[in-house]
Amino acid sequence: MFDRVLIANRGEIAIRIIRACQELGIETVAVYSDVDADSLHVQLADYACNIGPADAAHSYLNGKAIVAAAEAAQADAIHPGYGFLSENADFAELVTKEGLAFIGPSADVIRQVGNKDAARDVMRSAGISMSQGSDLVDNLDNAICQAESIGYPVILKPIAGGGGHGMFVVNNQPELHQAVRKYDASSLASTPYYFEKYICNARHIEVQIVADNFGHIVHLGERECSLQRRNQKILEEAPSSILTPEMRQKVGELAVRAAKSIHYTNVGTVEFLLDCGGNFYFMEINPRIQVEHGITEMVSGVDLVKTQIQIAAGHQLTFSQADVKLNGHAIECRINAENPNANFMPCPGQIDFYHQPGGPNVRVDSGVCAGSVVQPYYDSLITKVIAYGKTRGDAIKTMERALGEFIITGIDTTIDFHKNVLRNPQFRMGNVDTQFVYKQMIS
Amino acid sequence: MFDRVLIANRGEIAIRIIRACQELGIETVAVYSDVDADSLHVQLADYACNIGPADAAHSYLNGKAIVAAAEAAQADAIHPGYGFLSENADFAELVTKEGLAFIGPSADVIRQVGNKDAARDVMRSAGISMSQGSDLVDNLDNAICQAESIGYPVILKPIAGGGGHGMFVVNNQPELHQAVRKYDASSLASTPYYFEKYICNARHIEVQIVADNFGHIVHLGERECSLQRRNQKILEEAPSSILTPEMRQKVGELAVRAAKSIHYTNVGTVEFLLDCGGNFYFMEINPRIQVEHGITEMVSGVDLVKTQIQIAAGHQLTFSQADVKLNGHAIECRINAENPNANFMPCPGQIDFYHQPGGPNVRVDSGVCAGSVVQPYYDSLITKVIAYGKTRGDAIKTMERALGEFIITGIDTTIDFHKNVLRNPQFRMGNVDTQFVYKQMIS
Repeated sequence: MFDRVLIANRGEIAIRIIRACQELGIETVAVYSDVDADSLHVQLADYACNIGPADAAHSYLNGKAIVAAAEAAQADAIHPGYGFLSENADFAELVTKEGLAFIGPSADVIRQVGNKDAARDVMRSAGISMSQGSDLVDNLDNAICQAESIGYPVILKPIAGGGGHGMFVVNNQPELHQAVRKYDASSLASTPYYFEKYICNARHIEVQIVADNFGHIVHLGERECSLQRRNQKILEEAPSSILTPEMRQKVGELAVRAAKSIHYTNVGTVEFLLDCGGNFYFMEINPRIQVEHGITEMVSGVDLVKTQIQIAAGHQLTFSQADVKLNGHAIECRINAENPNANFMPCPGQIDFYHQPGGPNVRVDSGVCAGSVVQPYYDSLITKVIAYGKTRGDAIKTMERALGEFIITGIDTTIDFHKNVLRNPQFRMGNVDTQFVYKQMIS
Repeated sequence: MFDRVLIANRGEIAIRIIRACQELGIETVAVYSDVDADSLHVQLADYACNIGPADAAHSYLNGKAIVAAAEAAQADAIHPGYGFLSENADFAELVTKEGLAFIGPSADVIRQVGNKDAARDVMRSAGISMSQGSDLVDNLDNAICQAESIGYPVILKPIAGGGGHGMFVVNNQPELHQAVRKYDASSLASTPYYFEKYICNARHIEVQIVADNFGHIVHLGERECSLQRRNQKILEEAPSSILTPEMRQKVGELAVRAAKSIHYTNVGTVEFLLDCGGNFYFMEINPRIQVEHGITEMVSGVDLVKTQIQIAAGHQLTFSQADVKLNGHAIECRINAENPNANFMPCPGQIDFYHQPGGPNVRVDSGVCAGSVVQPYYDSLITKVIAYGKTRGDAIKTMERALGEFIITGIDTTIDFHKNVLRNPQFRMGNVDTQFVYKQMIS
């Protein structure tokens, strides 16, 4: 096992990794930008190293500085968390070239799944169905032609990048012009893009997979992540309330087949869309821990972050598919420093008072405490609240009471927005799809 | 089900009951003394009612004021929590006479188990073994005579009162003189007392029982509560690491038999001592929720406070003994506002900064937040941290990392003391008995 792990991230996921390391008896090295010197993840780590200025491009995205920090701190492995460098194959390669372990899949696997176009080819060969897609698009005329050949609505997607960034749903030719303009003005402008047939009223269903370096691969059931705004997940559940046992088994097998087809190792997620007819369409594989991993931990009893570390250290999986027993229901609410009444505008600033929920069946993964400064430079996620129950109804009740006792002052948050979601009759009946937030919550 | 419950308590247990009520859709009424007006339990309840001055005798122990508050607030039931009026049969009687439900056993049962002498008689008739005891003692000569007839060491016990108060271990005649003097100077001076043979190197093993009003009675396994100081529990575990499956079954059956023999209803605890020879000796029945109930909830999946409320509302148990499956291991550390370096002197005062642990497998039941004032008038317990793991070793590791991230400033606490317990080699091997704290921790 590793002696010392450097965590190339910040906020709640850095703290999540610190916790896993501490319980495994591994020392931790935090990294931080100038504005994060006093942040909670720095306080909780054994060692900490400044890696640059506030701008992430020069700190949390600076792979060379991070590897240098790991070497200076005599770390033997690097955990990338999610976001930042977690899906950067070049970074994974750099880490291993320097003789350190990268806690994640190999650079080759990251590269393969990172190119959505190529990944779709592999999955198609493996017999995994997906929505009809276009070739890569290189100009507007070509875009019009390909979109019309698939038939509207379509969704424009960059071939690289994850987390729903740079994607636009297009219903007709004028919207296509608009989408291409937006895309060209975005940070992904130089990335090739393509179209997929857009599946209306779809649910986002993703499957957690775990694979060691010895050919063992297991899935831990699905997560329902349909509650999204601008392709960003807001609230997730495990299991999905709509899957029959047969559908659950099918999507689990699809995920395992997808992962096997690219010789996936470590922890990852295979994302699908589910249409009204019960058909699953492959979307992508995320080669990293996800924000919402905790709900799978609650229903499976498997610690995914420890598992990542153990697999990277060369351990075999200690359980097989037959050992996986999923129990109960878990819901996660992402608490963001945003103002839902002002179009979810980020609300950086100092937290004056902070008291997080507790009691039975509540798990809180927070990146902040009282006095923390929420920075404008990074993602606005500050805390995740997870509620567990024997049934979905129980989990909803526990989440409602947990959010009711959460006190944060000094910044705006999405707590009240989540309370509204939880009391929405359609949500309570499990009638959610990827348009739920627009149809039900934002008038 | 009840519409509105008044909680005749304060601090973390009041909040625990508020949480259960909220999840059951029941409104809550807090009560508070003058100094508790701003406390967290008052903030979290739907309604709140002042019941008197700081001195508990005139507020939290003032049964009439509490019943009057319940009537004014149109509550239909009263939950007594633990301590204060929870074992007061007259209070339970008053509550029911006024047409309110008392969330606990009947006044008759409370009275029966409250008189230890009488309770021992009933248990003896039911064939439950216990350590040899004396008759009631009424003067020093009689005390000497009875102690010597049993043979030293003996333990002097008041026939009424719980929580380990007013008990003294006596090894010889001079110590007996001293103990009787101390007893006569204590608040229990007017209570008759008796002696029991003192069992050396014993473990404190208690069994959680749950009984509805329809004759169904189930146990939820045992708790190991040997880590005590002055008969006050400090750290508890479920299950006990020393019981074999046969011993576990035996003590569970003993507990159920004990409870049946007095027609026990609602939630309660049967306490035993376990000697080195593997023999269980009945101690007493606590007719209330215990501080340490959360560890049983973690391993059994049963919400004990909701169960109390449901039973009091006339519901049947929804599970049988065969349905009870105990999984994993849970440890609770009681975080007290005390200075372990000054003989555990209580340290009331204002909490400046407070950030409680989070992440997987950690449950925090706190009565305080930043800014809370720990009062000198009441018990010094401020927060309970519970860690869960598949094994005892996992639970210990999780507790260590949880305590490591717990930040409280402004008052002294027992956090560091617990860290020392957790790293003690004897503790880690499970070698604990009721003298552990004296033998291992306090030099």
